[in-house]
Amino acid sequence: MYKRRGLLIVLSGPSGVGKGTVRKELFTQPDTNYEYSISMTTRSPRVGEVDGVDYFFKTRAEFEDLIEQGKLLEYAEYVGNYYGTPIDYVDETLDAGRDVFLEIEVVGAAQVRAKAPNGLFIFLAPPSLLALQDRLVGRGTECSDVIASRIQKAREELEMMNLYDYVVENDEVSKACDKINAIVVAEHCRRERVEKRYLRMLRGE
Amino acid sequence: MYKRRGLLIVLSGPSGVGKGTVRKELFTQPDTNYEYSISMTTRSPRVGEVDGVDYFFKTRAEFEDLIEQGKLLEYAEYVGNYYGTPIDYVDETLDAGRDVFLEIEVVGAAQVRAKAPNGLFIFLAPPSLLALQDRLVGRGTECSDVIASRIQKAREELEMMNLYDYVVENDEVSKACDKINAIVVAEHCRRERVEKRYLRMLRGE
Repeated sequence: MYKRRGLLIVLSGPSGVGKGTVRKELFTQPDTNYEYSISMTTRSPRVGEVDGVDYFFKTRAEFEDLIEQGKLLEYAEYVGNYYGTPIDYVDETLDAGRDVFLEIEVVGAAQVRAKAPNGLFIFLAPPSLLALQDRLVGRGTECSDVIASRIQKAREELEMMNLYDYVVENDEVSKACDKINAIVVAEHCRRERVEKRYLRMLRGE
Repeated sequence: MYKRRGLLIVLSGPSGVGKGTVRKELFTQPDTNYEYSISMTTRSPRVGEVDGVDYFFKTRAEFEDLIEQGKLLEYAEYVGNYYGTPIDYVDETLDAGRDVFLEIEVVGAAQVRAKAPNGLFIFLAPPSLLALQDRLVGRGTECSDVIASRIQKAREELEMMNLYDYVVENDEVSKACDKINAIVVAEHCRRERVEKRYLRMLRGE
């Protein structure tokens, strides 16, 4: 019988933009309807961190085995430790019709896009667009070097966001969360998705 | 100086689906942020209807002059009367950076799509998807003729919605309004739109 598959939601963005803060805020909201996919890592647990809650903690050998077996949706190495997303949990949750939420680095997001082109990719951007606009209209008194470096940074962000479906400026955490929630609602209404559901249903799947 | 242009929002769908009810509900919400584009018609005002509020009332000659001059974004004739959308109001409001909301028939929506491909097109669908699903899984006791005609209707709706970006099922007016509001928020975050704003700003427009 026809069953609607969940949506894979990927939140990413430049480091330091506040992805973790936004994700945590989203998951404290009582009506949040996404499943958070817990990452896997080879780094040691910090005080208070719980295996299976904060991360799945693995040895380097275990992690590399999982890579070999294709059991990671994405992974990357940062300062000597692996971080990744176990694929089975994501697949099972999506198959059960629930939306899965990943909060990952841009390198990982690019890997997920390649494997799950139908996912919903949200780029969390620093509120530099507005800041830049203020600067360009000359409200500030900054020297041209500062302005030039801002413009350079904006160009880099533009390049980075090319892979994504949506861009949310993180000017305020609660506003960014509202926008992300709206995007998920809207995405479920996108014609291509509704059409697919209709067609599968008409074929009796 | 750079100025963000408003979004053209078009709500349409099969006749009888409840477009007018949903539109009225949207515009009674205190935080609605769209400008409603008042239609023009050659039909006579009904009791209580006010020129410039409910419609712009015109004679047939005036209406046809406006068609000639290209002053209508879309128009159609129903039971001997013209109905249409004056283009100037739409353009001026969009240029002022405000979103404009049209609630029109599917024939008109097709004309708007051709002229304003960047608009946001929402198809309001009867809640037949769910109803159909119930029937297909055999929960009901309806005869196969009824089921066949439902399937036929679903196929027609599918064909019709091909032109649209989003499909909102009108199962409940307030839920449909919530979805439409979410879609507008999301659409302002779509990467292509944000990118365009960024680029225009960097070029100093």
